[in-house]
Amino acid sequence: MSIRALIWNEYVHERENPVVAKIYPEGMHRQIAKLLGADPEITASTATLQEPEHGLTQKVLDETDVLLWWGHARHGDVAGEVVERVVNRVWQGMGLIVLHSGHFSKPFKRLMGTSCALKWREAGERERVWVVNPKHPIAEGLGEHFELENAEMYGEPFGVPEPLETVFISWFQGGEVFRSGLTYRRGAGNIFYFRPGHEAYPIYFNDDVARVLRNAVRWAYNPQADLRDPTEAPNVPVDKALEPIKIRGARLHADGEEGLR
Amino acid sequence: MSIRALIWNEYVHERENPVVAKIYPEGMHRQIAKLLGADPEITASTATLQEPEHGLTQKVLDETDVLLWWGHARHGDVAGEVVERVVNRVWQGMGLIVLHSGHFSKPFKRLMGTSCALKWREAGERERVWVVNPKHPIAEGLGEHFELENAEMYGEPFGVPEPLETVFISWFQGGEVFRSGLTYRRGAGNIFYFRPGHEAYPIYFNDDVARVLRNAVRWAYNPQADLRDPTEAPNVPVDKALEPIKIRGARLHADGEEGLR
Amino acid sequence: MSIRALIWNEYVHERENPVVAKIYPEGMHRQIAKLLGADPEITASTATLQEPEHGLTQKVLDETDVLLWWGHARHGDVAGEVVERVVNRVWQGMGLIVLHSGHFSKPFKRLMGTSCALKWREAGERERVWVVNPKHPIAEGLGEHFELENAEMYGEPFGVPEPLETVFISWFQGGEVFRSGLTYRRGAGNIFYFRPGHEAYPIYFNDDVARVLRNAVRWAYNPQADLRDPTEAPNVPVDKALEPIKIRGARLHADGEEGLR
Amino acid sequence: MSIRALIWNEYVHERENPVVAKIYPEGMHRQIAKLLGADPEITASTATLQEPEHGLTQKVLDETDVLLWWGHARHGDVAGEVVERVVNRVWQGMGLIVLHSGHFSKPFKRLMGTSCALKWREAGERERVWVVNPKHPIAEGLGEHFELENAEMYGEPFGVPEPLETVFISWFQGGEVFRSGLTYRRGAGNIFYFRPGHEAYPIYFNDDVARVLRNAVRWAYNPQADLRDPTEAPNVPVDKALEPIKIRGARLHADGEEGLR
Repeated sequence: MSIRALIWNEYVHERENPVVAKIYPEGMHRQIAKLLGADPEITASTATLQEPEHGLTQKVLDETDVLLWWGHARHGDVAGEVVERVVNRVWQGMGLIVLHSGHFSKPFKRLMGTSCALKWREAGERERVWVVNPKHPIAEGLGEHFELENAEMYGEPFGVPEPLETVFISWFQGGEVFRSGLTYRRGAGNIFYFRPGHEAYPIYFNDDVARVLRNAVRWAYNPQADLRDPTEAPNVPVDKALEPIKIRGARLHADGEEGLR
Repeated sequence: MSIRALIWNEYVHERENPVVAKIYPEGMHRQIAKLLGADPEITASTATLQEPEHGLTQKVLDETDVLLWWGHARHGDVAGEVVERVVNRVWQGMGLIVLHSGHFSKPFKRLMGTSCALKWREAGERERVWVVNPKHPIAEGLGEHFELENAEMYGEPFGVPEPLETVFISWFQGGEVFRSGLTYRRGAGNIFYFRPGHEAYPIYFNDDVARVLRNAVRWAYNPQADLRDPTEAPNVPVDKALEPIKIRGARLHADGEEGLR
Repeated sequence: MSIRALIWNEYVHERENPVVAKIYPEGMHRQIAKLLGADPEITASTATLQEPEHGLTQKVLDETDVLLWWGHARHGDVAGEVVERVVNRVWQGMGLIVLHSGHFSKPFKRLMGTSCALKWREAGERERVWVVNPKHPIAEGLGEHFELENAEMYGEPFGVPEPLETVFISWFQGGEVFRSGLTYRRGAGNIFYFRPGHEAYPIYFNDDVARVLRNAVRWAYNPQADLRDPTEAPNVPVDKALEPIKIRGARLHADGEEGLR
Repeated sequence: MSIRALIWNEYVHERENPVVAKIYPEGMHRQIAKLLGADPEITASTATLQEPEHGLTQKVLDETDVLLWWGHARHGDVAGEVVERVVNRVWQGMGLIVLHSGHFSKPFKRLMGTSCALKWREAGERERVWVVNPKHPIAEGLGEHFELENAEMYGEPFGVPEPLETVFISWFQGGEVFRSGLTYRRGAGNIFYFRPGHEAYPIYFNDDVARVLRNAVRWAYNPQADLRDPTEAPNVPVDKALEPIKIRGARLHADGEEGLR
């Protein structure tokens, strides 16, 4: 079965900035869809901020296995309701790959519970991405490192929780380092943050970046993505207890009553 | 120097339910304050939902080293603004100890990025709390386990991220288990979730529970709690780069410009 | 492509103890091989302590994707050279699934770096294994819990490092709890510890146990298992540095010299 | 009470190499002892490879709260018996700080269960150590980064398990990165690996390095370091079970019998 990947893009710079428009005339989302489509096991589609409900209706999300997220200039325009929908789908098991400036997107900040802040510089400097977790599925097919000759710098400290695994760390020409590939799990959903992707350079034409994205989609895919109600907090009635027990002491709640939230 | 602990309590059951009122006539917060006050290194004060700004003004939080949180029936009444203030203080380095039904409190859900759901049963059954991380600071002075003869059951799965450390796991008479002591770090803040604390039983009169709370306050205390602006994402101007670099390629941003969010 | 699983068994109790011989007349390894063989993607073979080099020659290990390990009475008889060979293959990327009393096996203790101690009781009591990480690949197809009506008890504290993920926690009738499913990564190798498997009861005839074993083999399989020399510590000569640098200051080593160990 | 730190040094380069002898005429251990002794809460003593039992008798270790380890040229000369003694003390709760080339020391490899390999270059290049975990106790008093103008390079991949926390990441002039400060816990013992410390440069005269070492000693200190027998695997007799149970089914072991290893 094919993995259904959905690339979400804010799609602003490509329409407003001539530099970016020239690199990505059809938008970064379409270029990323091409990269993913090169993998016969992935079916890639796209959605953008401008579409109704940002293209992220419940139906679309229910039919998505892995969501990729690129945003930058209009994080604030993403509707809270859509954010909660995305977050809930991640808890249910949808994979999420957060790209570059998506570190400040609402869904990522919501799922991390931290500031997700970092330092940055736009100088077209060299970035060298080191694989620190060799033979990790997301690093499949890469050498020990790969280089981006022109990159925006992101520097530590990166305000995220300690990850499950650190896959990549970047070296920058100007003297900084950054944890560029981090894995998390929230509910049944696998999350991967991947740093490269600045809009002013042709990052999504790079073969190693393409490889990482394809690997990450396969890694994030959870075929059991059907945890229907992740927020449910069921009462277990006393007479349904797995071991026989009797009620003792005081009680606030009646049997089978819904819990307080 | 003394650690300034603040016990926040929703303070509803004690005023509305005669069973709880009898156990905690002055409120759970005052009883917990007594337990903490027995430690000469801790200064304990209290705040409740009913106070202006729930007793959690910026000034109060700025003067708090470790916040303890008990809530249940009125999670929804906690103002969003106060929640963000608490969260920001945790990122700055304030410790947070979340008690029992506080698993569904707004600050905890906000900091975990997950549902924080669980299953539950109120039957006064026996709970045995096992120390799975011997000699952890939070378990100091405990034996291999301690028992609560009457407890509410909380059962797995507990919808939280993989913790830094699992300190306690509970056995329940009715057949369930629960990860009852979990540590996290968010920004510069240490977070501890501690399961026991049901209002219908005199849990906060138990010596082992008291010991855990005192240990947890000491553990959560970060004397460096002064990360002033955890959400700052500073631009590093090219001429201030630590290694000499020159601008190459295209740019979207002017030097020293504020980043997009 | 098929995953090549190898079940290693000490194979002592089945030959020496009539109770065990009756349950597993052909040995536990053959029964486990049957369970795994039911998965069309797994090819299962076996090896035992009594074979030359315990059946774990370099060639055999090189052709193994996932090794399962059952040992108890003769941990001490496993040759140190074979242990190092197994450990090195795990670092290269071979998966390892350690079963029940294998917690005290040489390869597991070697890879954990801890005592791997626990408490135990053999009373045929009930064990209820709870899934605490829903929708984890190793829990695929399981309900919220499964039961073993007769089990040996293993109790906390379990002397292992904090795991990557806790998948299962067991409840025991006699009052203990145990982290029964834990994941680790050492080098490129995925490791899973799975508690059930006491020889005196027909554990490996249980459908849920079978399902966990099959899931675990698929999870542990690393198709990139080819990290040829995990212990290599290469010198990077100055003239091969990725950024141009010149030698400055004192040196102990000549260019390209092998490092000290 | 004072924290009893013991600095163990192989003490070979300082006696055999004139460059190193000139920097550390009394040995690196004595210089590190001076740095630690500047903290009124630390009492520092030293031991070297050349002493009987390498200066690490059971009595000495029993009276040590935190052990620091520097080794390079003679890892192989450290007696296996002493290594096991050190490892057991760590499990009991003694802190361990592994310095620089100590990554290949026997105790560190033993406690990690991995190869601990890395790449390296000795060119006196610049190293910039970034704090990625702000306000971590080990980073107390540091700025966002500190620099070592002349350092040996260590490069990723570093063959260690995923740490509890990543505290420092280094940038190297020649193009590599390295996780330079990592925390672990093994049994009741806190472990910190700290990269800087090459013998050919005056690293242990650097104020930031000194600060890290003092912080790390305080962090690693476990006042409860008295887990007497970490390898004990006690049988719990059926009649001592915490919940009343009866023996059911078959048994291999007699009551109270010692377990198999």
